[in-house]
Amino acid sequence: MTTAEFATTPSPPYYAVIFTSTRTAGDQGYGDAAQRMVELASGLAGFLGVESVRAPDGAGITVCYWSSTAAIAAWKANAEHVLAQQRGMRDWYEHYEVRIARVERAYGKPPDR
Amino acid sequence: MTTAEFATTPSPPYYAVIFTSTRTAGDQGYGDAAQRMVELASGLAGFLGVESVRAPDGAGITVCYWSSTAAIAAWKANAEHVLAQQRGMRDWYEHYEVRIARVERAYGKPPDR
Repeated sequence: MTTAEFATTPSPPYYAVIFTSTRTAGDQGYGDAAQRMVELASGLAGFLGVESVRAPDGAGITVCYWSSTAAIAAWKANAEHVLAQQRGMRDWYEHYEVRIARVERAYGKPPDR
Repeated sequence: MTTAEFATTPSPPYYAVIFTSTRTAGDQGYGDAAQRMVELASGLAGFLGVESVRAPDGAGITVCYWSSTAAIAAWKANAEHVLAQQRGMRDWYEHYEVRIARVERAYGKPPDR
């Protein structure tokens, strides 16, 4: 992944916040803030992991995993995150969509099979 | 987005298949097959949209939206898709994780606000 490797999540159920976005032009402090937000989220109760990819054309998908909707609500209300959300809406993102989803089933192919 | 723009999805609830992956080296027919799979899925009952991003380092996240778990099961069992899944596991992906999630809430910032 670009900012994080595969998330090691527990058995479902748990929650995913799917954040799809397109960036505006220029960094405008985005890179540092994005890194800080991952650091901040990682320290919160209920954080399970994050997976994030951004393509060179500015399109990005970040999926953050949480143990409950209460944990997601606490993250959304975090003071430092609220400021970042305001800057994101104003300066960093041309368009974004947020979807909160309950993960019900999961499987995969591990890297060494 | 890289292979698709933002998906225009209905009001929740609906379902998301979150596919996180890292590619192997070389194309090996992947590009054409990926395009064909989007075309094929788009024609199926219950398909709501797809968002997909891949970074230059080979990390990718594709989120496909469906109206129900039955629609997802039908897509997983589609004969042409089954062959692609087999090639994906063998040739195209070093590692992948699939998560099936029920979207419960959605909001966003449209591009022209």
